[in-house]
Amino acid sequence: MQKHQHIIGEDVRGCPIEVTSFHFIGSDRHAPKAYLQASMHGAELQGNAVIAALFSAFDQSQLLGDVIIVPHCNPIGGNHKVGEYTQGRFDPISGENWNRQYFYPGDGWIHDFAESHLKQDKIEIYQQFRQALLEQVSEQLETSWRLSRGRLMTHTLQQLAYQADYVLDLHTGSNAARYLYVPAYAEASAFYFHQEHVLLMDNIFGGALDEASFCPWWTLEQQLHQLGHDQASVPSVEAFTVELGSQEIIDNDRAQYEAQGILAYLSAKGVLPKDAYQPADLIRHVAKSSDFVTFHAPYGGLYEFVITPGDQVEQGQVFARCLRVMQYGQQPVSIDIHAPFSGQFVNQFDSAAVPKGAELAKFLKV
Amino acid sequence: MQKHQHIIGEDVRGCPIEVTSFHFIGSDRHAPKAYLQASMHGAELQGNAVIAALFSAFDQSQLLGDVIIVPHCNPIGGNHKVGEYTQGRFDPISGENWNRQYFYPGDGWIHDFAESHLKQDKIEIYQQFRQALLEQVSEQLETSWRLSRGRLMTHTLQQLAYQADYVLDLHTGSNAARYLYVPAYAEASAFYFHQEHVLLMDNIFGGALDEASFCPWWTLEQQLHQLGHDQASVPSVEAFTVELGSQEIIDNDRAQYEAQGILAYLSAKGVLPKDAYQPADLIRHVAKSSDFVTFHAPYGGLYEFVITPGDQVEQGQVFARCLRVMQYGQQPVSIDIHAPFSGQFVNQFDSAAVPKGAELAKFLKV
Amino acid sequence: MQKHQHIIGEDVRGCPIEVTSFHFIGSDRHAPKAYLQASMHGAELQGNAVIAALFSAFDQSQLLGDVIIVPHCNPIGGNHKVGEYTQGRFDPISGENWNRQYFYPGDGWIHDFAESHLKQDKIEIYQQFRQALLEQVSEQLETSWRLSRGRLMTHTLQQLAYQADYVLDLHTGSNAARYLYVPAYAEASAFYFHQEHVLLMDNIFGGALDEASFCPWWTLEQQLHQLGHDQASVPSVEAFTVELGSQEIIDNDRAQYEAQGILAYLSAKGVLPKDAYQPADLIRHVAKSSDFVTFHAPYGGLYEFVITPGDQVEQGQVFARCLRVMQYGQQPVSIDIHAPFSGQFVNQFDSAAVPKGAELAKFLKV
Amino acid sequence: MQKHQHIIGEDVRGCPIEVTSFHFIGSDRHAPKAYLQASMHGAELQGNAVIAALFSAFDQSQLLGDVIIVPHCNPIGGNHKVGEYTQGRFDPISGENWNRQYFYPGDGWIHDFAESHLKQDKIEIYQQFRQALLEQVSEQLETSWRLSRGRLMTHTLQQLAYQADYVLDLHTGSNAARYLYVPAYAEASAFYFHQEHVLLMDNIFGGALDEASFCPWWTLEQQLHQLGHDQASVPSVEAFTVELGSQEIIDNDRAQYEAQGILAYLSAKGVLPKDAYQPADLIRHVAKSSDFVTFHAPYGGLYEFVITPGDQVEQGQVFARCLRVMQYGQQPVSIDIHAPFSGQFVNQFDSAAVPKGAELAKFLKV
Repeated sequence: MQKHQHIIGEDVRGCPIEVTSFHFIGSDRHAPKAYLQASMHGAELQGNAVIAALFSAFDQSQLLGDVIIVPHCNPIGGNHKVGEYTQGRFDPISGENWNRQYFYPGDGWIHDFAESHLKQDKIEIYQQFRQALLEQVSEQLETSWRLSRGRLMTHTLQQLAYQADYVLDLHTGSNAARYLYVPAYAEASAFYFHQEHVLLMDNIFGGALDEASFCPWWTLEQQLHQLGHDQASVPSVEAFTVELGSQEIIDNDRAQYEAQGILAYLSAKGVLPKDAYQPADLIRHVAKSSDFVTFHAPYGGLYEFVITPGDQVEQGQVFARCLRVMQYGQQPVSIDIHAPFSGQFVNQFDSAAVPKGAELAKFLKV
Repeated sequence: MQKHQHIIGEDVRGCPIEVTSFHFIGSDRHAPKAYLQASMHGAELQGNAVIAALFSAFDQSQLLGDVIIVPHCNPIGGNHKVGEYTQGRFDPISGENWNRQYFYPGDGWIHDFAESHLKQDKIEIYQQFRQALLEQVSEQLETSWRLSRGRLMTHTLQQLAYQADYVLDLHTGSNAARYLYVPAYAEASAFYFHQEHVLLMDNIFGGALDEASFCPWWTLEQQLHQLGHDQASVPSVEAFTVELGSQEIIDNDRAQYEAQGILAYLSAKGVLPKDAYQPADLIRHVAKSSDFVTFHAPYGGLYEFVITPGDQVEQGQVFARCLRVMQYGQQPVSIDIHAPFSGQFVNQFDSAAVPKGAELAKFLKV
Repeated sequence: MQKHQHIIGEDVRGCPIEVTSFHFIGSDRHAPKAYLQASMHGAELQGNAVIAALFSAFDQSQLLGDVIIVPHCNPIGGNHKVGEYTQGRFDPISGENWNRQYFYPGDGWIHDFAESHLKQDKIEIYQQFRQALLEQVSEQLETSWRLSRGRLMTHTLQQLAYQADYVLDLHTGSNAARYLYVPAYAEASAFYFHQEHVLLMDNIFGGALDEASFCPWWTLEQQLHQLGHDQASVPSVEAFTVELGSQEIIDNDRAQYEAQGILAYLSAKGVLPKDAYQPADLIRHVAKSSDFVTFHAPYGGLYEFVITPGDQVEQGQVFARCLRVMQYGQQPVSIDIHAPFSGQFVNQFDSAAVPKGAELAKFLKV
Repeated sequence: MQKHQHIIGEDVRGCPIEVTSFHFIGSDRHAPKAYLQASMHGAELQGNAVIAALFSAFDQSQLLGDVIIVPHCNPIGGNHKVGEYTQGRFDPISGENWNRQYFYPGDGWIHDFAESHLKQDKIEIYQQFRQALLEQVSEQLETSWRLSRGRLMTHTLQQLAYQADYVLDLHTGSNAARYLYVPAYAEASAFYFHQEHVLLMDNIFGGALDEASFCPWWTLEQQLHQLGHDQASVPSVEAFTVELGSQEIIDNDRAQYEAQGILAYLSAKGVLPKDAYQPADLIRHVAKSSDFVTFHAPYGGLYEFVITPGDQVEQGQVFARCLRVMQYGQQPVSIDIHAPFSGQFVNQFDSAAVPKGAELAKFLKV
């Protein structure tokens, strides 16, 4: 294992802000490569516990392909504490979500690439496309005055992620069940992970690392197909956002279990020996990511939930109660909150004190 | 003058959060109407001083058209103090920019409206379109669990703004010159305002109030033109973001001057008697808003600017110096920062302590 | 029941910031009076659920003495959200802890009062002392430019609290057991409350409401004793900080149970009919508040606790593990954290992400 | 010059947080030593510009005594940005003012030291007292679980400051004139500095570095005097808080001027050759620090000041105007704010948006 330091920013003193990547070199240089990172959102900690579990596993396993891991990949967000908690979701200077600032080269650029490489074999195309993507990111980083602080960081990380065939971005929800964002073409891969809820994504770039990692390849394959390349298919590159439950906590036992899912995926893909790890037998609910619906608080007040993330909910069912003690003597002090549709309750706001309009709950609508 | 209260949210106790609109009734019910608001971004205070100046003017003038004014339109952002300063730019819960959450009905809806009203006269079309827009916003507010806290607020304000022909959203920059965002079709109107820098906008909706106010009408006119309506033209509705210098300060004398520009515009448009107010004679620099370029800090450090917002800058000119005293003994302690192109220096970061990648300066590139 | 509004501040617009007091009038005007408030620290929510339970109980009970209740007594702190959480512990402008800004008239003033009332009967002394205290607070509020925003609020609340014989300030810990701060002279009263851990306080004023409520009376009795008044005793006025578990959550069922303890206390004291409510039979651990010891994080890292607030801990016992995944390949990735003494584990930091030196845990040392 | 790194904390990843001290070695090992630091409060930046000016001066001067300098001494506070500004005044986790957490060994300990060293010569006493102080601080740092994050940092810095005879802590006000905190016994030294306002401090420890540096020596001398030591006098150790104008800005030219004052002081004291630098000829207003009075905002609103920090003010004079545009139609929109006494206006709140009770202004009452 080798450690490398990467400067992702400079603080107000002019001192470098660094992340560390841990490089595990596989025994088979033809085997595919993986990239994992954790805590782009600073309060989402569990990924680091999962990485610790992976480190232990790698100590005892024979890796075939290279694996690059960046724990605590956003030290700015991770260290922005306010009160006891971590406001690590968005840049406290600008409000920009840290995980919406990755680079995408643009459909036009990919089209041009496809057109100019049409006569080549897919293996060559993939090699050259990966190289071209890496050059694109490097170019971005060269004119740094064009880049926000978030982009400086994410683009630097992308230089590592773009070297990999399989990219796993470890996140958590607020107070949440485990779920997985999967590009629709890789739905089968979801069944290796230990995430009970699976969200299928289309080829739409919204700024996140998973999208930044799979959209270029997906668009490339689509362009190749349109242009008549006879090997056009689904991408062999895959990328996932792995949601590991709730923020602001770690659970080392659960991390073992969650790591098993990731190891099972890496085994299936040949980064680890096939069959070295098997996924657990669990029921997975698959839905389109467009059916992942936010329910904003219809009242300001103090909320107590009567269901737990991961539960099913029926339309009209009371899933929370809103306490408004100031209303005593005038209006009801407690208001039942009803589910507007049936589905799975996946995420809840992680404070009982909720102003009207905050993201009270997220449901997978069925 | 009448005052109305509007509930734009509920706090964590369940208590209403309110704004006040001040309604001035004009003497001519056929005269056009105006809407002004200030401080959607909580630290941008000067608009309220301008409103105080307008109130004084209205006390002494004969208004022809109705004017609705909402000072301190965002009490949530305005009261989110951290240290002495105001973090009022984005929702501290979600990071969402308060001024990117207005409602736009969508091109498709406007197309359908245009098609189904093709046979009508423009005056009728305008009346019915305004009514339809108001209904669209009301509909949004009915299913409040779909709306974020920012949308609850902005959509409520939009119910007022959509009643007006002329919409002025009073903002400021950080440490900034005075500038004005203008829809390209209303360029001539810019010459009434006392803003030295003018940014011409295209018909692209990005979530701000000015766009939310002019894009529907612009798109309507474009659709009418495409569909062959013989009265299709540029919209008579106009909307502006008026940038009144620097945030976190008020200057009551300057507010008088800035109010004169707004009064000159309202006079020219017939909300006030024609010629009641005249604009000042000043040079205005007009540019496309796409030429308004952000220069991110190329180094972390402490910055001192050697030019002042409003100044011209030549490509290669030193416009700031970055102090990095920690580098003493190793690297230069002071680094000159050069302009990457020629233009006008409009806005600077309002703290000398700047991490790499923060929005150090904004230039109007020429 | 009557509701009264109290202006505790003005926001940046000049609009009043108000709290509501709920006044329940007892049937016996000679019966003692009680005052309760909740959420001086904005994230400490459970007191409001307890108040809702008390409201229900009062609807069905015959109150003898008057009870004044202020839920959500600090709307500034309660609404200062950052990310999902509430930074309601200290003024975000100044850093001052909201619960350290109450008024104390000073030992000298109390001494003078005692000396000048020595010849009077205790009942008269109490009446006049209460009146004098109220006048002292009012006087403070008259020269408002001398008062911080926290003092404007706390002193206004104190005008209500000083009318009562029994003052209950409802708080919570971070992630905590239930505990109670009790002035040492009122130790017996602790056995009515449903708090398992009891901290005995000396006559030292540190700025909190309980101290502000009992210290003047305690000092008065001490002065009377020293000056030879023959009725000098312990104060009949009592005040408590009631810690209701963890912040950022409400639990309505538990609130019922916690309210029973408060009702048992009020019954015992004659605010409610004697024997109307009985305390639960539970073991209470009593200690001096000076034995309530903070254990600061000895390492920066991600912490998982292996014990739960309320648990006993032996000296040397591992009570938490600190994950430092960045150390992989150099130092241990997991460090056991040992208790430095035996006692009860009462409170833990409510985020797993802890920089070195933050308040990781609080123990009642035995 | 030598650079040393000092670990003052560990972040949530377990990574060290470091400051750098710059050590200049004087040519005369008997010459007195100086210690300077800047930016304990993160937004107070100008000290770093002054340090840059001192670095230049030292490059060209012959230092006699050693000088240790720590710029950016609080990287946690300095990098806690919210919006564009720096909330570096208090720990964002706990609210504790960073500059109130230094160590003081206690009067009792100093008394015991004095008593047990009574028979010694002052030079010996000083040597041993300094050594004993350093040991006291080291001891504190050994049981780190007792120390808050602020104490870990300040105590580490104190290990450097306690080596010096002259301690200068470089701060700024909010929007402020230049002023200087001076222990009363060192009043004469104030006349070297280029600070127009001088605040004389008593021997009271409130937690700041200047007090932590001079109080032990002052108490020692007082104890020696009381115990009859024939060399008891005023301390030869001196410490100052140097207030360098306004926060959030740097001014490199002004830093040159301010550095001259510091160099004049160091010359006068023999750290630099006598007469190497002379102070400027300026009028200094001397007052007791207890006459430094905070004027809290008597109204919530938007403030414009009509005087400038450094100005004289007469009792009853209007020094600011408070705009409350929401009151239009009911109450005056502008309220004059009158000075409650005569004096010098030294500091103003650095945002026009001020809630009632915030620290609007500070005056030196005469």
